[in-house]
Amino acid sequence: MMDSLHEHAVTPRTDAEKKAMTNRLKRIEGQVRGIQKMIDEDRYCVDILVQISAINSALKRVGFEVTERHVKHCVSDAVKSGEGEEAIDELMDVLNQMTK
Amino acid sequence: MMDSLHEHAVTPRTDAEKKAMTNRLKRIEGQVRGIQKMIDEDRYCVDILVQISAINSALKRVGFEVTERHVKHCVSDAVKSGEGEEAIDELMDVLNQMTK
Amino acid sequence: MMDSLHEHAVTPRTDAEKKAMTNRLKRIEGQVRGIQKMIDEDRYCVDILVQISAINSALKRVGFEVTERHVKHCVSDAVKSGEGEEAIDELMDVLNQMTK
Amino acid sequence: MMDSLHEHAVTPRTDAEKKAMTNRLKRIEGQVRGIQKMIDEDRYCVDILVQISAINSALKRVGFEVTERHVKHCVSDAVKSGEGEEAIDELMDVLNQMTK
Repeated sequence: MMDSLHEHAVTPRTDAEKKAMTNRLKRIEGQVRGIQKMIDEDRYCVDILVQISAINSALKRVGFEVTERHVKHCVSDAVKSGEGEEAIDELMDVLNQMTK
Repeated sequence: MMDSLHEHAVTPRTDAEKKAMTNRLKRIEGQVRGIQKMIDEDRYCVDILVQISAINSALKRVGFEVTERHVKHCVSDAVKSGEGEEAIDELMDVLNQMTK
Repeated sequence: MMDSLHEHAVTPRTDAEKKAMTNRLKRIEGQVRGIQKMIDEDRYCVDILVQISAINSALKRVGFEVTERHVKHCVSDAVKSGEGEEAIDELMDVLNQMTK
Repeated sequence: MMDSLHEHAVTPRTDAEKKAMTNRLKRIEGQVRGIQKMIDEDRYCVDILVQISAINSALKRVGFEVTERHVKHCVSDAVKSGEGEEAIDELMDVLNQMTK
């Protein structure tokens, strides 16, 4: 487990950003509950796999947006103030972990 | 969207199987809620990405087990009764979708 | 490293199958040489990444076809002759490795 | 296809960097030729899949290093000179393509 450089987002998320992200996560949470129901109803494996695959895509998009915001704010700010090296190493570590 | 070959698992899941799967999905659901909390508390992007990556791994393991059971029961049964072709085409389609 | 169940394809590949596969692999080999040239000419990183991504997609398609043929021949034959368990375990191991 | 921001690496690759990269790509080229031989000798599908999976890992590592160098040089330079936005958009596009 990495020890991350900050505890909070360097540029705070706006309320609109938080709301958009929360809505997407709530939808993902609903999709996960949907799979529990499918298991309970003994639904066909392939239909369950299609749903799992949809959740993975949705999560990937969320991760992608978090990464984009991170590079545009936290990493860029670090580069500008001469502390880019550390921030970029941390970014590459997490990208590596995400694509494993 | 594929039109799947069955509506239900060909060999019904046992109660123990259902319970194990439900527990894992409940844990994943909790992890997704955890990310909502992190967004709300404006936590550092990299820490959020590490959590998203953990959920993806957990979901991948669930998908893997569903696939394994599917091949061992549904696909094998189809092959034995001479209807393997269709079942294997369906399997390959969903594997393709899952690794996109 | 797994110790695989066979040394050769259970149903031998036809000449046409071998030729089609070899052509695709020769193209991939050419793409890898293309990247060496790009490195040598000090080409822009993003253009190199786009090429690497193209090779990965091409390799994935080759792997997909090898898997499909494997399931349709080797795994199906094993299932029919009552030795499905071992063949399916081997299949799941390699799928797991490929999606890591 | 994206129209990339540069034709050449902004900070030229050193001879040592080029050599290290070329060696890795030559090894990958050899691995691709190895698969052609396996197809020709009608080797077992699973053994071929294991080799394809090894090439994919090797290519991923090369892509990872190219990305790291890109962020440390090209993107950082762009950020410092106030042109970060465009460089980051381009980076995110290629990351998105690579993880598809």
